[in-house]
Amino acid sequence: MKVAIMGYGTIGSGVAKVLDTNKDIITERLGESLDLKYILDLRDFPDDPHKDCFVKDYKNIVKDKEVKLVVETMGGVEPAFTFVKAMLESGKSVTTSNKALVADKGAELMKIAKDNGTNFVFEAAVGGGIPIIRTLTACLTGDVIEEIAAICNGTTNYMLSNMEQFGSDYDQILSEAQSLGYAEKDPTADVEGHDSCRKIAILTSIIAGKNVDYKEIPTEGISKISATDFKYAKSMGYSIKLVARAVKKGDTYSCRVAPYLVKPDQMLYHVSGVMNAVAVVGNMLGESLYYGAGAGALPTASAVVGDLVFLARNTDKHVRIGWANEHLQLADSNEQRFKYFVRTSALQSNIENEFGKVHYTDLDLDDETAFITEEMTEAEFNERKAALGGVISVIRFF
Amino acid sequence: MKVAIMGYGTIGSGVAKVLDTNKDIITERLGESLDLKYILDLRDFPDDPHKDCFVKDYKNIVKDKEVKLVVETMGGVEPAFTFVKAMLESGKSVTTSNKALVADKGAELMKIAKDNGTNFVFEAAVGGGIPIIRTLTACLTGDVIEEIAAICNGTTNYMLSNMEQFGSDYDQILSEAQSLGYAEKDPTADVEGHDSCRKIAILTSIIAGKNVDYKEIPTEGISKISATDFKYAKSMGYSIKLVARAVKKGDTYSCRVAPYLVKPDQMLYHVSGVMNAVAVVGNMLGESLYYGAGAGALPTASAVVGDLVFLARNTDKHVRIGWANEHLQLADSNEQRFKYFVRTSALQSNIENEFGKVHYTDLDLDDETAFITEEMTEAEFNERKAALGGVISVIRFF
Repeated sequence: MKVAIMGYGTIGSGVAKVLDTNKDIITERLGESLDLKYILDLRDFPDDPHKDCFVKDYKNIVKDKEVKLVVETMGGVEPAFTFVKAMLESGKSVTTSNKALVADKGAELMKIAKDNGTNFVFEAAVGGGIPIIRTLTACLTGDVIEEIAAICNGTTNYMLSNMEQFGSDYDQILSEAQSLGYAEKDPTADVEGHDSCRKIAILTSIIAGKNVDYKEIPTEGISKISATDFKYAKSMGYSIKLVARAVKKGDTYSCRVAPYLVKPDQMLYHVSGVMNAVAVVGNMLGESLYYGAGAGALPTASAVVGDLVFLARNTDKHVRIGWANEHLQLADSNEQRFKYFVRTSALQSNIENEFGKVHYTDLDLDDETAFITEEMTEAEFNERKAALGGVISVIRFF
Repeated sequence: MKVAIMGYGTIGSGVAKVLDTNKDIITERLGESLDLKYILDLRDFPDDPHKDCFVKDYKNIVKDKEVKLVVETMGGVEPAFTFVKAMLESGKSVTTSNKALVADKGAELMKIAKDNGTNFVFEAAVGGGIPIIRTLTACLTGDVIEEIAAICNGTTNYMLSNMEQFGSDYDQILSEAQSLGYAEKDPTADVEGHDSCRKIAILTSIIAGKNVDYKEIPTEGISKISATDFKYAKSMGYSIKLVARAVKKGDTYSCRVAPYLVKPDQMLYHVSGVMNAVAVVGNMLGESLYYGAGAGALPTASAVVGDLVFLARNTDKHVRIGWANEHLQLADSNEQRFKYFVRTSALQSNIENEFGKVHYTDLDLDDETAFITEEMTEAEFNERKAALGGVISVIRFF
């Protein structure tokens, strides 16, 4: 079966490498081989082992009826959307690692695939090598999903793990991560939680069966987390993790991306460094967790090739996964309930005036008091916090 | 689409409950409903909501062409094998939760399914609710699997976790587990590792694509693990877990089921109580782990229903998974290499005569010395151990 790759960057060339390295076992599992016929890239790769495959116009792929499977690893919404749409409309199935494309256009591309009797899949768009998409769409299909909580960004998890281990401050760890290639020069998408936000939007769309607009999910990153916050966390026996979360509320879900205080009896506590994990609670299954490399060329390419095998097994029909192109109204995030850890310069008497009974967790630092609230809604907390004043930092308990 | 359940015990009735409770979302995902038409059981259930579905002769199901999907939750090899074979030969697809059947007859039933253009699947036979079978057969299909290490028996993991937590001895914890229903009256299959052995045989068959005979896997259970062993483990910063393991060696795998010393930076260390987990290393993916409830009616039934959705999506064709009915010659387990923790009544001078440089980990107990060996093969260790004499217990490091 003939395959085309669009975009020969880190992941695209990783896909070619997986197909080459594991050719025999893939053929054995599938009953036929997956052969690379085209690579679409504007750049030249004169020394590449696949140098005869390169084309610069996607229409060369569109018009070749022999190509049934297409990999999109270009990134960004355009021209990826135009190219993928054309592939689906010409009867080819597509797998993508492009979370921006899936978060923006996933439901639309799913409908185009359905209308053309082909498939559009995107295992590598969330969780890198972790097979979370197929787990949700092809394994936990007998369950109502009650909750998803994901550590789904390798950069921030690496940074938080190192801040915890070495007691370093945010800026220092960011510089280190950048010099090691774990963080980009402009780290905003990772450290401000935008990447995690798109991923939980995709996961929530799948479990809800309707389209979640990622822009509606309240999102905080890790750029305000300090070495002092970790000192407090440690003294309480907790770690701090950036968690993207969706919790079922009636017929919809309540979502948030934020740093959370996580304790050791929760599996997410033990997910360190660049590793990622997605915890899923089903109404029949109960708790489960899927752990692995959330990024990196080969793990991500491994997920793309897993998708190719799925697509090759289903070239004759569209496999319904129930993600409708219909907007999901998320539950009001101000009604979410948490216990909060708060550092403030306010006086103890004022704290008790605003928050009533609290649990103090002081480290005897000058000019600040730290406390843990009772459980309350976001709306209530924000009101009391504004009245208190002098708040240095706030972290929710998971 | 019409469904039959054979065997209305804990899991069979759990399957009916999942189909009832989650009917709407299953229909939404599949595009049609899964309707229970028959339940095969020799017992009478006059008050059951599905009382009109009961039959006592499996041939009633065989001859009904409307039934495309059959669940086998009877347990044991016969008559389950005869019934499942008849279902497959009459063009129906089958899912089973029966690990004895899969370990004994899996490859044979797979071939019968292939010859009849149907499917035979068994997600619930290994790992209860953890979707490990579909992960291996439909997700990690682009990877050569280099290693699987599974905590895949809830009873023993519960017992070990409690021995660790409360410092109790084996017999006491076994009694408690039996009174709570976590261990059977005759606990042999669980505590001696036979259950874990069948499960790793199934997993290894899938990743190797050939048939592993579980009787060829060296298997030790937990019945020799004592409170004192846990004292030593704790003093070294380790836990003790019953791990079923397969490691790639050339064109085959090297397997073993045994208690291992596991450290906190390994995810398996954190798998406690009745929870199970399967760690999988792929040559492209790297490390991954799948965690969840390894037993229990509803988690297991959830996996069966996930299989039903898969079967319903593939009623038109056999999906190849590459498990040939051909014997896999396992690698020589005597060549496996470990570091060993040893307790002995032998003199220190004799220890050093036999084992050379060792690391002592004494707790100052009377009449015994404890030490850790260098890494060596099983064959070499067994020879030295026999020469030393007086060995009280041995546990391998993971």
